[in-house]
Amino acid sequence: MEPLAPVRWHNNRLGLIDQRLLPIEERLMACSSAEETAQAIETMVVRGAPAIGCAAAFGLAVEAMRLAADQQLGWIERLQPGYARLRSCRPTAVNLAWALDHLWSLLPGMAPHEVPQQLLMAAQQILADDLASCRAMGQLGADQITQPSGRPLRILTHCNAGALATAGYGTALGVVRALRDQGRPIRVMATETRPLLQGARLTAWELVRDGIDTTLITDSMAGHFMSSGEVDVVIVGADRVAANGDVANKIGTYALAVLARHHAIPFMVVCPLSTIDRATAHGDAIPIEERAAVEVTHWAGLRRAAEGVQVRNPAFDVTPATLVSMLVTEKQVIFTPNEATIAALWTT
Amino acid sequence: MEPLAPVRWHNNRLGLIDQRLLPIEERLMACSSAEETAQAIETMVVRGAPAIGCAAAFGLAVEAMRLAADQQLGWIERLQPGYARLRSCRPTAVNLAWALDHLWSLLPGMAPHEVPQQLLMAAQQILADDLASCRAMGQLGADQITQPSGRPLRILTHCNAGALATAGYGTALGVVRALRDQGRPIRVMATETRPLLQGARLTAWELVRDGIDTTLITDSMAGHFMSSGEVDVVIVGADRVAANGDVANKIGTYALAVLARHHAIPFMVVCPLSTIDRATAHGDAIPIEERAAVEVTHWAGLRRAAEGVQVRNPAFDVTPATLVSMLVTEKQVIFTPNEATIAALWTT
Repeated sequence: MEPLAPVRWHNNRLGLIDQRLLPIEERLMACSSAEETAQAIETMVVRGAPAIGCAAAFGLAVEAMRLAADQQLGWIERLQPGYARLRSCRPTAVNLAWALDHLWSLLPGMAPHEVPQQLLMAAQQILADDLASCRAMGQLGADQITQPSGRPLRILTHCNAGALATAGYGTALGVVRALRDQGRPIRVMATETRPLLQGARLTAWELVRDGIDTTLITDSMAGHFMSSGEVDVVIVGADRVAANGDVANKIGTYALAVLARHHAIPFMVVCPLSTIDRATAHGDAIPIEERAAVEVTHWAGLRRAAEGVQVRNPAFDVTPATLVSMLVTEKQVIFTPNEATIAALWTT
Repeated sequence: MEPLAPVRWHNNRLGLIDQRLLPIEERLMACSSAEETAQAIETMVVRGAPAIGCAAAFGLAVEAMRLAADQQLGWIERLQPGYARLRSCRPTAVNLAWALDHLWSLLPGMAPHEVPQQLLMAAQQILADDLASCRAMGQLGADQITQPSGRPLRILTHCNAGALATAGYGTALGVVRALRDQGRPIRVMATETRPLLQGARLTAWELVRDGIDTTLITDSMAGHFMSSGEVDVVIVGADRVAANGDVANKIGTYALAVLARHHAIPFMVVCPLSTIDRATAHGDAIPIEERAAVEVTHWAGLRRAAEGVQVRNPAFDVTPATLVSMLVTEKQVIFTPNEATIAALWTT
């Protein structure tokens, strides 16, 4: 099976697999401006912290191509609105800001007539680096997991931290793929991940596509299966990790971490260094996006919830570092994430 | 607002509010035989442990009316197939067997020509007793809950342990109604309860109908809101309580109990004595119904989950007695449910 490329350069535009349509249909959406890219990120055509970082970088590059003819203003002035629009289109994942700020920092060093091409090359580099990071994390994470004797390793994952959430291969699912590539017998249990069903629609789709034994459960069943001894390890991704190791990730991650601790099951978080936000001291300071009520009340345009009920719809929650057994980055695995061990990732 | 009567005697037949259609439509389904009643219970036209006990009792009574003309066999022989069919139509809730066995035990004492009318009267009595039990439990449970000063009490509930799950008034939601009737400011947070959305469709509907401030969340959000200090008490019902106090209830209850303990939030289980199964020693011995995969993979006939994925769909889980802060019955509140304190419910 051809590797998944959810974010790619295609026909001189940004091409995104429209993840809202999966698993029913695999369709590429083209973006030709920062605004189109920002809308695609907001509406979750593309989602997953590393993937939206990659998409935003290409979004700035296509914006530069669109504006290349305009000679009235300098590049900073021309690109500023698109940069600002992209940078604020979703608040929680830090990779978005990280990727854009990286490109922005390169801008002053570029010859003006080369800016569009140079930004595109920088975006391509971010994509390539993310893919390489995923493969490195997969290997490092897999090496930390003990294989039970005589039966498959049983992995529980939440949401989609897979190929579709990255440049390819995945973070949490990168570890799953590395385990598979090591020839280990594995079984994955995927939570459906309400409200947007990234587990049922995306994780199940990409793992079944890769021939990996996968079982779908509702989010509420995870505790039951931990209690019945059917989970050996929990592996999730992250949208932002604070300087002290607190992890913001898809809503429901925190409950899984508490349940894993209660059952003495290792809880592994897998994310590239670009997801670690050293400027945010702890999890309480991470902005948590609250999305529209309709995601909870409706299904395919049909209201299922009773009229008149209020709705809360936080898209993420924060898991304190103390509940994280292992934080896997492309550089190394940290067993006690805290301010010192996180800071050491940049100094050692 | 008129009280809800999900199970009622109507036009000489059993009338059930078809809960599959709520909240879109409130329609009464009529059952004229044990088979029709069993199918209604299996397909969750009616659900909730006390309500299916009441429905099954009326199911046996309508079966007797249907078979009254048959003079070839005695009543035991005539009713045996319907009794057996009803008794096995769902495995987990013990009220079903309890109600049927109660009627069955009365049968030998009935004059043959009076059996249909006597069974109907016995079913009516079960319904009346259940309603009275709910009101008693509501009062006893509410009296155990401390009102915070200066703000509403915030209650988290799961699935539907409401008027719709009982003869009326509810078990967990009976406590909510009693708190409201005591004039206390309250706010309810209801989990949607995948896969069948009893929280979004039924709990939200009956609480909004009663003018109670209600907020809907997905199941995965409960831990987050406990962590952010937005839950004062968790109140749930039960489908079967073992002799040692272990509680079988809607899938996801166990995870809420672990999360409540982690956050030092009281976890209250509310159920009538008819839900306590003294013949089942502990939770591991309670049969857990596993329902069809289509409940998880599809929505309104449309498949949302990826093709090829396997599915687990246990409808219930077991919460160990040690995680239950209070077990509220119509007789008294037990603070340390165990074999001795449960047994004492019948001896003191």
